[in-house]
Amino acid sequence: MIVPRLIERKRDGERLEPSEIHELVLAYADGRVPDYQMAALLMAIYFNGLDRGEMNALMEAMLESGRRLDLARLPLPRIDKHSTGGVGDKTSLILAPLIASCGVAVPMMSGRGLGHTGGTLDKLESIPGFRTALSLDEAERQVARIGCAMLSQTDEIVPADRKIYALRDATATVEVIPLIAASIMSKKISESLTGLVLDIKRGSGSLLPDLEDELEVARAMIDLGASHGCPVVALLTAMDRPLGEACGNALEMVEAIDVLRGAGPPDLIEVTTALGVEMLILGTVATTRDGAREMMRDAIATGRALTKLEEIIDAQGGDARVARDPARLPRAPHQANYEAKTDGVVQSVDPRAIGYGVIALGGGRRNMEDTVDPSVGFVVTAKPGIRVEKGQRLATIHARSKEGLALGRSILDEAIVTGDSAVGALPLVSHRVTARGVEEL
Amino acid sequence: MIVPRLIERKRDGERLEPSEIHELVLAYADGRVPDYQMAALLMAIYFNGLDRGEMNALMEAMLESGRRLDLARLPLPRIDKHSTGGVGDKTSLILAPLIASCGVAVPMMSGRGLGHTGGTLDKLESIPGFRTALSLDEAERQVARIGCAMLSQTDEIVPADRKIYALRDATATVEVIPLIAASIMSKKISESLTGLVLDIKRGSGSLLPDLEDELEVARAMIDLGASHGCPVVALLTAMDRPLGEACGNALEMVEAIDVLRGAGPPDLIEVTTALGVEMLILGTVATTRDGAREMMRDAIATGRALTKLEEIIDAQGGDARVARDPARLPRAPHQANYEAKTDGVVQSVDPRAIGYGVIALGGGRRNMEDTVDPSVGFVVTAKPGIRVEKGQRLATIHARSKEGLALGRSILDEAIVTGDSAVGALPLVSHRVTARGVEEL
Repeated sequence: MIVPRLIERKRDGERLEPSEIHELVLAYADGRVPDYQMAALLMAIYFNGLDRGEMNALMEAMLESGRRLDLARLPLPRIDKHSTGGVGDKTSLILAPLIASCGVAVPMMSGRGLGHTGGTLDKLESIPGFRTALSLDEAERQVARIGCAMLSQTDEIVPADRKIYALRDATATVEVIPLIAASIMSKKISESLTGLVLDIKRGSGSLLPDLEDELEVARAMIDLGASHGCPVVALLTAMDRPLGEACGNALEMVEAIDVLRGAGPPDLIEVTTALGVEMLILGTVATTRDGAREMMRDAIATGRALTKLEEIIDAQGGDARVARDPARLPRAPHQANYEAKTDGVVQSVDPRAIGYGVIALGGGRRNMEDTVDPSVGFVVTAKPGIRVEKGQRLATIHARSKEGLALGRSILDEAIVTGDSAVGALPLVSHRVTARGVEEL
Repeated sequence: MIVPRLIERKRDGERLEPSEIHELVLAYADGRVPDYQMAALLMAIYFNGLDRGEMNALMEAMLESGRRLDLARLPLPRIDKHSTGGVGDKTSLILAPLIASCGVAVPMMSGRGLGHTGGTLDKLESIPGFRTALSLDEAERQVARIGCAMLSQTDEIVPADRKIYALRDATATVEVIPLIAASIMSKKISESLTGLVLDIKRGSGSLLPDLEDELEVARAMIDLGASHGCPVVALLTAMDRPLGEACGNALEMVEAIDVLRGAGPPDLIEVTTALGVEMLILGTVATTRDGAREMMRDAIATGRALTKLEEIIDAQGGDARVARDPARLPRAPHQANYEAKTDGVVQSVDPRAIGYGVIALGGGRRNMEDTVDPSVGFVVTAKPGIRVEKGQRLATIHARSKEGLALGRSILDEAIVTGDSAVGALPLVSHRVTARGVEEL
């Protein structure tokens, strides 16, 4: 294998053989190919892409670089949900206990905040004592015992992906569809799933702002899943504004608990339900959409879903009392309302401005070394299209200090635009993509 | 400076500010920017290019990363010649002493073999004792004393270029016109020249096989020179076959000495003379082409050019007796003629096959650690278009062993094609490019 020659061929738009990609990725994983050659190749892939065969070879090599969750003997369907990342998106926190309480195992491997988007692990760690760094053995035992584990990507799982992902972040090669698809699917296939539901975000707050790209990443992941016996269903959902109201780690945990107790904002409930329906049908415990909805309503109404959350928190070392008493979660010392300055219609609530705003308040990372303050953030009740009056509350700011409140106000001044025009927002759930094709909803 | 953001902007086809390129290159030179980020940027530049301002900023930063030859006080014009690399190209070995013997200083910094092309340093080092690793102080003193020094790029000269060049070689980003131009010109400007003659190779054995690319690299270097008070004249010359007959380090040294003694193959004499004319006119010691030709003829006929070669060899620790007695150069233990297998017309002599063939015989490097056998190579007397008879000598093979002779024969079987068709070869010197434009010759 002459690496510069492989880079040159990809640079010139040629196809690499699956065996070449396989050898290269494994050599990179164990340090025989240096970062700089992989970086040049990734940039060439940015420009010239990978076809399905190349992408599949990349994913297989990443899988082969590590271990998998061993759940095949478990007598339960195993379904995960993955989102391409958004602001205020706490559906994982709701769906993991909810779907597990309906008899489907949910082995859920999640990430941390990235760019302007929040991360499920950071949100879970707002629960005092909650531990996400489970070993694969621990995760396997926990899924077998209570039907769910919520863990971080360990060193054992797809280490080649971990290494390539860090390199992409440092070399402006993140937004490359086949790399995104292979990275996500390598982690998901390693969870030993019987099905996967994807939440592909659309709009200004999403990684891929273009509908064609979103459909293409969905199709790519569906194909990768199909070639590994893992059926995939993707929903395209709105991320032109935050999902729900809470943005910030503990605040989002509170809102997720609200939904598990039968309350919560309607947009969050709608998206969560749509994803949950797909999980239950893929998991073969429901056969109709109405049946799936009924099953979730029942799990919430009887308290089974909330009990499952308590079991998960307890199993992972956290203070399970937060499920019934969310006031036990960290709370920022300063809160203030943010009010409309004029009468009008909310034109937009910019998810990037809100997401970066949470980081600016201390609730996210600028560098991997930063520590996260779980308590800070925003609760944004304003939604694009609603009519507001001067003085009406649009949001609440949660900050560490008075200076933080002032910073929060200036962030919201930028993020929330009020005017007189009519407003067109994306539908909450717009497309459903399966191996059979794209369905507009 | 957020490096991934700079990479992203170049990736997206945006222009970087000169100050950004400057800061980035100097940070890379001293290790604050890692190889992998520079590699990703270089690949983005491969696809999206650099404009004149960006290219100039790159060259200036490379210059600033090191020291320059300090020759400005020398009361002589200072002219160098640079070639983009070919097979059998020993014009530097002839021109350095020849032009220096005409009263123009020639501070000549050269390279080693790269890919299929030979390197002036390797050829010089076939002279027993010859030392090319001069310090800048040594080189300055030698140019002041005898009008010429032939040295390798030291650690002191444009270290940023050295580092970027090594990275390009490993990441398939060599063939990028603004990077080629900035790299060459940073070294040449650091020689404190009053003028530069470029030999841009054309045809299958050249780095850039496309005429438009060759003209563009000429124009780019002319512009870079103009912005630093160094007028540049470029000639486009044929590299669809080897130049001259000898290919291999000591063999080429012998042929260069032949020319300095008034003999040598006509194609080599023609190209060398064309380049020499430009050097003498740029150096202001000749005012007409005929006058320049006469001056060179005289330097050879009187022996002044050969004496200058002896002075250079002597100053750099070599055995100067080789100039009058080339048999003192290393000679391969095995020689054999290679003969035509049929009557016909020579269709082509592939310079890449010959160049890689010299390496295969041990006369070049596959890795930087390889040692070079100066004695091996080919003397190819066959030229495209000549009529040959079965059994006529087309070449002589110089090898370390009988196996080497057999290898040489199989290389020549591939490299020299004989047939019946008429043959169209490139003109030896086809274009002259200056700041005023392109002149077809």
